[in-house]
Amino acid sequence: MLVDFKRPSSNIKYLSSLSSESWLEQALSNPIEILIDHAHCERKAAGVAIQLMFRYPSEPDLAEVLSPIAREELEHFEKILVLLKDLGHSLKALKPPPYGAELAKCVRKEEPYRMLDSFLIAGLIEARSHERLSLLALNSEHKSFKLLYVSLLESEARHFGIYWKLAQTKFSKNETNKRLEELSNIESEILSQTFALPRIHS
Amino acid sequence: MLVDFKRPSSNIKYLSSLSSESWLEQALSNPIEILIDHAHCERKAAGVAIQLMFRYPSEPDLAEVLSPIAREELEHFEKILVLLKDLGHSLKALKPPPYGAELAKCVRKEEPYRMLDSFLIAGLIEARSHERLSLLALNSEHKSFKLLYVSLLESEARHFGIYWKLAQTKFSKNETNKRLEELSNIESEILSQTFALPRIHS
Repeated sequence: MLVDFKRPSSNIKYLSSLSSESWLEQALSNPIEILIDHAHCERKAAGVAIQLMFRYPSEPDLAEVLSPIAREELEHFEKILVLLKDLGHSLKALKPPPYGAELAKCVRKEEPYRMLDSFLIAGLIEARSHERLSLLALNSEHKSFKLLYVSLLESEARHFGIYWKLAQTKFSKNETNKRLEELSNIESEILSQTFALPRIHS
Repeated sequence: MLVDFKRPSSNIKYLSSLSSESWLEQALSNPIEILIDHAHCERKAAGVAIQLMFRYPSEPDLAEVLSPIAREELEHFEKILVLLKDLGHSLKALKPPPYGAELAKCVRKEEPYRMLDSFLIAGLIEARSHERLSLLALNSEHKSFKLLYVSLLESEARHFGIYWKLAQTKFSKNETNKRLEELSNIESEILSQTFALPRIHS
């Protein structure tokens, strides 16, 4: 158990559970692997935003908010590549945890539910990243890691807000809240199942 | 026939043919449709760069050059969205010409040829965009279009150079040149077949 384990003072309220201490211990013990995995997360998040732009090319006011998200994710991705290089490491393929694929299974196939679920799941992943990067920022011993995670985590919260607002703009408040609660419970359930390797979403 | 049809003074030498006057006439007669199509081209080009990063996650020094390309394509995409909005239009789905799909068929399935072909085709598309945006910049009557195309075309040439350099870094000069010549001939052949709708790559 970590002696000085710190929790952020506030979290995005829509997460159904907080990350476990054992996740944090594993992450802090494997800083490079977590950093590489987080680079992949940023790249995947950019891919998700672009994929949504491809899927809904004529949806009003969608590309205008998704494209800047994708650019920002890529900026972060590049920032991590620079730190990795400074530390004598480089990007490599990592076996992903089941998290993303399990959440993707929850997306309903029929529109407009497919759109709602896609927004909410993209938002939940950002919310979880925000919570975990906050933990890493607070508890990492290495200054470069700490500074990097501090610099990234604010965007994750903002991106959650953008996806949340997109959902609320296009669907009723009641429907959005209800579905977010369901998905949030599933998200916590997925994370409660052990995945042996250190990952941002293990 | 256009009375004051202007050709740029220089083009990327790797294209096997110049665009026809009939393409330019059609494009200039449908400026909004061409603008919307070009927005989709920028979005697709960002998608291609990200897709290559996904496919080769541990290829040294690849993500470092592809990620900034993707970001720049998205910046251009957003720039076009702003102009469209200023002109009272917005993004909409357009039937794509066969160009991209026909070129994609030329990518060999086995590595490392798949990588080489992917770089060269991505580069050729950038080279063709550069040639056509130069024509649009020189011949558009509307100042906003002219300024936009001028502001975009330099990047297309630079991106061609980046893909070309990637190919040369990872493959022999002889192999790269030979394959580029083959693909460039196919690219011109595809464009020589009429596609009825006004598109950047029709």
